[in-house]
Amino acid sequence: MVPHLVTTLTGPINELEQRILESMPAIERWFRLEWMEHTPPFYSDVTVRNAAYKLAPVSTGLYPDGFNHLIPTMLPLAVQAAMAAIEKICPEAKNLLLLAGPNTQDSGYLTNLQRLVLIFSQAGLNVRLGSLDPTLLQPTEVTLPDGSQLTLEPLLRTPRRLGLKDFDPCTILVNHPLSEGTPSVLENLHEQYLLPPLHAGQSRRRLSQHWQNYEEVAKKFAKLLGMDPWLINPMHALCADVDWQPGAGREGLHTQVDALLGKIRRKHKEYGINDKPFVVLKADLGSDDFGVLTVRDVKDLEAALAPLVAATAPGAAPIDVIIQEGIPTCEQLHRAPAEPVVTMIDRYVVGGVYRTHAQRAMDESLTVAGAEHVPLGFDESHQLPKPGARPGASAPNRFYMVGVIARLAMLAAAYELEATDPDAEVYD
Amino acid sequence: MVPHLVTTLTGPINELEQRILESMPAIERWFRLEWMEHTPPFYSDVTVRNAAYKLAPVSTGLYPDGFNHLIPTMLPLAVQAAMAAIEKICPEAKNLLLLAGPNTQDSGYLTNLQRLVLIFSQAGLNVRLGSLDPTLLQPTEVTLPDGSQLTLEPLLRTPRRLGLKDFDPCTILVNHPLSEGTPSVLENLHEQYLLPPLHAGQSRRRLSQHWQNYEEVAKKFAKLLGMDPWLINPMHALCADVDWQPGAGREGLHTQVDALLGKIRRKHKEYGINDKPFVVLKADLGSDDFGVLTVRDVKDLEAALAPLVAATAPGAAPIDVIIQEGIPTCEQLHRAPAEPVVTMIDRYVVGGVYRTHAQRAMDESLTVAGAEHVPLGFDESHQLPKPGARPGASAPNRFYMVGVIARLAMLAAAYELEATDPDAEVYD
Repeated sequence: MVPHLVTTLTGPINELEQRILESMPAIERWFRLEWMEHTPPFYSDVTVRNAAYKLAPVSTGLYPDGFNHLIPTMLPLAVQAAMAAIEKICPEAKNLLLLAGPNTQDSGYLTNLQRLVLIFSQAGLNVRLGSLDPTLLQPTEVTLPDGSQLTLEPLLRTPRRLGLKDFDPCTILVNHPLSEGTPSVLENLHEQYLLPPLHAGQSRRRLSQHWQNYEEVAKKFAKLLGMDPWLINPMHALCADVDWQPGAGREGLHTQVDALLGKIRRKHKEYGINDKPFVVLKADLGSDDFGVLTVRDVKDLEAALAPLVAATAPGAAPIDVIIQEGIPTCEQLHRAPAEPVVTMIDRYVVGGVYRTHAQRAMDESLTVAGAEHVPLGFDESHQLPKPGARPGASAPNRFYMVGVIARLAMLAAAYELEATDPDAEVYD
Repeated sequence: MVPHLVTTLTGPINELEQRILESMPAIERWFRLEWMEHTPPFYSDVTVRNAAYKLAPVSTGLYPDGFNHLIPTMLPLAVQAAMAAIEKICPEAKNLLLLAGPNTQDSGYLTNLQRLVLIFSQAGLNVRLGSLDPTLLQPTEVTLPDGSQLTLEPLLRTPRRLGLKDFDPCTILVNHPLSEGTPSVLENLHEQYLLPPLHAGQSRRRLSQHWQNYEEVAKKFAKLLGMDPWLINPMHALCADVDWQPGAGREGLHTQVDALLGKIRRKHKEYGINDKPFVVLKADLGSDDFGVLTVRDVKDLEAALAPLVAATAPGAAPIDVIIQEGIPTCEQLHRAPAEPVVTMIDRYVVGGVYRTHAQRAMDESLTVAGAEHVPLGFDESHQLPKPGARPGASAPNRFYMVGVIARLAMLAAAYELEATDPDAEVYD
């Protein structure tokens, strides 16, 4: 079942789908060559939005926690991908410490952890679960919805290594986005493989770095396919040092919002799109996160900012703000807006779900409390498009396209992690 | 659905299943370490037999042609495995020439080819089909049962390369066992990747080499699990220079058949097995193939050989014969004996089917005309055993065990291809 597209099925997306299908071997080879030069993130999840006139990623996570949403028939793919990933990073690996976030009251998250334990055990590792919750002092059994149990254990840090009682892992896999900063137990671990690396932590990432890399990837890919990169790229601009203090001048932000809205308007005109353009504002640096603000007209900017300005402490330092082209989603499930989220391990798509939210509009973020997840469509053969099927009519073809776009964002994250690696050797 | 086991479910196989499940991470790690030292065959299929008291491979093919039997939901696994294999062997690969055997009247084989084209296209290669049939002189369209078409093209050989008209492949994948010898078009191709290599050809392989390597692998694996390797290893003996001429002395063969029957009898006594032992005789070298002869008592040996002896031309050279412990199959589908056949690409299990034959007995080979194939059980999660399920009661657990044994045989084939590689560098 393909989620219902609100708009007509004869838009640019269908041309894009057709072009992507026709170019399948070239696309896969292109990815293969990219992976010769770049290392994919260990795992990732990418949210993609289909606006009917364009199809673009809107967020790239490096700590995927939706393994509970994958349907069981897809798990062998995850196991195989995990085998390939481990073999590449650390073939001798024996013990894996999986680090859980503190949100272990959430039964969905616990099932996600259970799935990860299963996947990495099956890939040939002894897996134990450590907790990033510093208040957890004893091994603690938690019960899952299916009645099975997981044991969360307190971490044991020595000057050089991190482990559990009687468990010295060679590899540590973090399954929490570290949005609140880097826990000190994870600092200075030079003898163990820490996955993902600390500079992938949500608080340290800069969206502008990611989207600049994505733009580069999208341009290369668009060149391969002979198409306009805008069809897959959300335009963005960075506005440095925005001062949230009441009364502060934010002329730079006003100018840039207006300029980006103008750029979108011109693109809409070029493609005959009637949708009203909008932009979203986000903190560039993860640790400055203020959520997602939607702005449709520069006149409304200050009104949109008002709650944020009101909440800003006197003397708070200015922050960098990224302004992004807003991508509405035209897909619906049960009349609620829906967006596919693709989960990857290493370079492989291992599953996908639809995120839906009955209380949100098609031009709003669905990543807020109340979102539901529907494992869907990816169950059969997202990797096996059906050449010859009418564009837009074949679920496998639609999902193949979504998987390609998600992998482009994942590739951009690979570029990003290389660029931001504090230990990278610099050749000049 | 697990095929029905004729015998009791409380035999050594269930202990084996339990031990294999408990040792899953150790087993997978062991394989991973083996793959650091050895290169898996590009693809393979292994027939495994479950005798209730032992579970062992009985044949290891290096030109799997049963991709038509795989259920479509398993194909993404094959694509992912193909991606990993290609990336390792030749990441820049662009054009793949898939070489079909001459048996293109067989609609099952054509569907197998169609599946291979799909898998490798999806893995990022431009795939075209060449025919090993030297009488095919023009591109020929053949129609598949589903109404789609495949084009078989005549080969174009230049002094150094093999290709098709307007198609110069960097990689050539043979999908025909080359039982009749090596086609001259495949000789001396030093600039292209030929997969599998020529010394994997059926006519050139020696069963004794394979089974000696398998014994070595089985011993290593049994040591890892702390068990008797006999539980997974069919014993064998090699009898060199057997003369098929009428009246020739075949005392050596008699002695060895009797000795192997005695060894099996002792093992049966050790395990309290009531089955009557039998051995099978096969030509050691593929090009000497005379089928499979079953012998239950050395007194019956000459009678079993009679048709072969009668058919031997005067002056025919003696050949090497391998004598193997016969493994009956205790699995049944619709009251016909059944045996699982596991298909692998690179190191990964990508699917499996049951071969059944209504006209054959449980101690006879099922690989004869009239065999049927039932894609089964492997559909869901052969890679995802369910720890905790009662031994013998869980299809995923049964199939995981079968997949492990099949991979041991595939690993033995890796050893074999290294040992028989004519271009191998020798370090002494």
